[in-house]
Amino acid sequence: MNCELISVGTEILLGDIVNTNSQYLSKRLADLGIGVLHQSTVGDNRERLLRAIDEAFRENELIILTGGLGPTPDDLTKEVCAEYFALPMYTDEAIADKIRGYFVKKGLEMPESNLKQALIPEGSITLQNNNGTAPGSIIEKDGKIAVILPGPPFEMKPMFEESVVPFLKKYSEHIILSHNVRTFGIGESAMSERVSHLLENANPSVAPYAKSGEALLRVTAKAHNEEEAEKLISPVLDEIKNLLGDSIYGIDVGSVEEATVKLLKEKGLTVAFAESCTGGYCAKRVTDIAGASDVIHCSVVSYSNDIKNKVLGVKKEHLDRYTAVSDIVAAEMAKGIKEMSGADFGVSVTGYAGPYYEGCTDEIGTIYIAVTDGEYVWLKKLSTGRTDREYNRYVSASNAVNEVRLCAAAYPEKRSEGMRLDEFISTY
Amino acid sequence: MNCELISVGTEILLGDIVNTNSQYLSKRLADLGIGVLHQSTVGDNRERLLRAIDEAFRENELIILTGGLGPTPDDLTKEVCAEYFALPMYTDEAIADKIRGYFVKKGLEMPESNLKQALIPEGSITLQNNNGTAPGSIIEKDGKIAVILPGPPFEMKPMFEESVVPFLKKYSEHIILSHNVRTFGIGESAMSERVSHLLENANPSVAPYAKSGEALLRVTAKAHNEEEAEKLISPVLDEIKNLLGDSIYGIDVGSVEEATVKLLKEKGLTVAFAESCTGGYCAKRVTDIAGASDVIHCSVVSYSNDIKNKVLGVKKEHLDRYTAVSDIVAAEMAKGIKEMSGADFGVSVTGYAGPYYEGCTDEIGTIYIAVTDGEYVWLKKLSTGRTDREYNRYVSASNAVNEVRLCAAAYPEKRSEGMRLDEFISTY
Repeated sequence: MNCELISVGTEILLGDIVNTNSQYLSKRLADLGIGVLHQSTVGDNRERLLRAIDEAFRENELIILTGGLGPTPDDLTKEVCAEYFALPMYTDEAIADKIRGYFVKKGLEMPESNLKQALIPEGSITLQNNNGTAPGSIIEKDGKIAVILPGPPFEMKPMFEESVVPFLKKYSEHIILSHNVRTFGIGESAMSERVSHLLENANPSVAPYAKSGEALLRVTAKAHNEEEAEKLISPVLDEIKNLLGDSIYGIDVGSVEEATVKLLKEKGLTVAFAESCTGGYCAKRVTDIAGASDVIHCSVVSYSNDIKNKVLGVKKEHLDRYTAVSDIVAAEMAKGIKEMSGADFGVSVTGYAGPYYEGCTDEIGTIYIAVTDGEYVWLKKLSTGRTDREYNRYVSASNAVNEVRLCAAAYPEKRSEGMRLDEFISTY
Repeated sequence: MNCELISVGTEILLGDIVNTNSQYLSKRLADLGIGVLHQSTVGDNRERLLRAIDEAFRENELIILTGGLGPTPDDLTKEVCAEYFALPMYTDEAIADKIRGYFVKKGLEMPESNLKQALIPEGSITLQNNNGTAPGSIIEKDGKIAVILPGPPFEMKPMFEESVVPFLKKYSEHIILSHNVRTFGIGESAMSERVSHLLENANPSVAPYAKSGEALLRVTAKAHNEEEAEKLISPVLDEIKNLLGDSIYGIDVGSVEEATVKLLKEKGLTVAFAESCTGGYCAKRVTDIAGASDVIHCSVVSYSNDIKNKVLGVKKEHLDRYTAVSDIVAAEMAKGIKEMSGADFGVSVTGYAGPYYEGCTDEIGTIYIAVTDGEYVWLKKLSTGRTDREYNRYVSASNAVNEVRLCAAAYPEKRSEGMRLDEFISTY
């Protein structure tokens, strides 16, 4: 069964609000095995809404409309749906009383216009609204189903979960199950090429997605139940793991920082950051994860050279000769925060996030990252090729966190693959 | 002139991402006096995309498509548009070279598939992408205009502003000019009440908006030119300034951190943060602002009590007796970072962001903020009444930054309105 989502509201067309309802409903419908092939947004306008409903029903048996259930004259969704189905409307006294009661409870005068919300298309199912005055409706006629929900997410979501999901379950003869393989440092196109033969798969399907600096593969199976779906997915997941190796930082995990915090906890390791261009973004993202206090005790934002020298002990002559954006300064920052914090790993980020300013000694997007355990150091240089400050800061922080993940994963066995920290510093 | 927005991408139909592009474009088009009557989203599917374009052009001379410009086989937008306009495609060697260079710079192997992004519809205008490899296009034929933009917002937005806005200006016969009055600490309903008589205005219109912990008023005028619009707006702005006073942190400023950095620069003042529950969020947000290096030299994330004591000099007995979430510890953290950094203001944030854990000595959402210039201290206690970790961290950081703004604005005249730091500490 396929569904079209129609969002009703001029405020969306004006860009005053972000349409989060469509995302929520699309995701939940996918879980139910109902495909969404089209989403549309129309304003509070009778003709255009009527046309949108008509076009949607040409391709779908089910449409879900959100918004336009308010008490004001420009709230038209229920009336226009009733018109489309040629159903008269009547006042539901029980709902009218509920609305009156709602105002009494709030000690407010009820504008007569609010009773408009008690008008119901004949033969429709009324959906309780426990978070507002506007009830929803389901109209089922001639093999077409229109589900009408209020616009505010805090009214729409509970109504959908409590009333619509049970109603729709009888229409979904199968379920859809997805697993997301999250990768780092490989890029969408390279990732896609390595698994290209799998992208042709039908069930489970394998689809690549890019998101700022990362790439993920979604493996999706359609089956009669969860167990059957997992059976379909598991051999494909195994093959992907073999093909992508440790570019994969997790499956169904929210972010690289979440995967890294989890790994550090498992291994009983701790980390501290010395951040220049990221200005606290690494620490912020790691501490986004509840329970991060087990793995991060402190971090320092050393934005100025003076602080890099005074607080982290970066040699002044190195700052002068090689500038703050250099591998030696990154290594000394990492050493400094490791010693200051006593954490297992000291991590540093220093680079040019942009915009360009007098005195940049390298291209915007040039970033140095160092990780040290005190004895060994692992260095990474990024050239993002972009001038977007937010992008460069985000990707620098992602890479720093990912370097911690890679070091922790191989710790302590592969330490010797790093350089000896003091040897490296002494070469300068 | 009317425009339809078509978002292309199965990940939107699956609910994997929120469609923020439509909001951004709708808002910017409204500014240009171009109406958006319909938004739609289709998957990576040739037939459905072709049909969506055809339907859109029945009602609009202009359509803007976002997404589907990637290198993978399911990225179809440019091809399908060329097909709709019956235009052949050719490889633009300059773009191909740019793409090759992009990979060389990143030290990555370029998959051949990426050259697909250099395919250009004949006779189209190519739009530079300074933040990625996929160029955009404008196809203008038979009185129809298709603008094709990449999906990732950090690529789409700059391309729209740099290339599309100048192109569209010649099509908009009147302009819409808005000024946003940003307030902090007053709340949407209280703000709206104070200016309620203005909310009836037609031109300029005055509309209130709420956004996580803040409220703003948008004053919008429609006129033939900018000067005329400014004339309409300025008396209303003056009245709003009188009514809302220093709850206003800026007009047309992006954020409270931007306003604060600007003010600190003007006054030649510097700040350093000692962050516990915000874990670097204050420093991150201040350093989001280009040029923040003039006002912030360092910050410390002191997540553990041990670090609060060792690095910031918070008395161990105070941590033991009053816990880390107390006004005395906030004051000592601020003192410690002020002394360590040598900044004009030391600022601390300590509190319970959530979730609840064994050992919370106060409600989730209880946050203490302290600002000190070394001699005086200003304290603020928040009780957000919410348990949402991200919300509590965001609002704590916003309040800390706003406290800096208020102190800096009154500095040095109103110092004596604070308590003497050492007297305050000695009372414990």
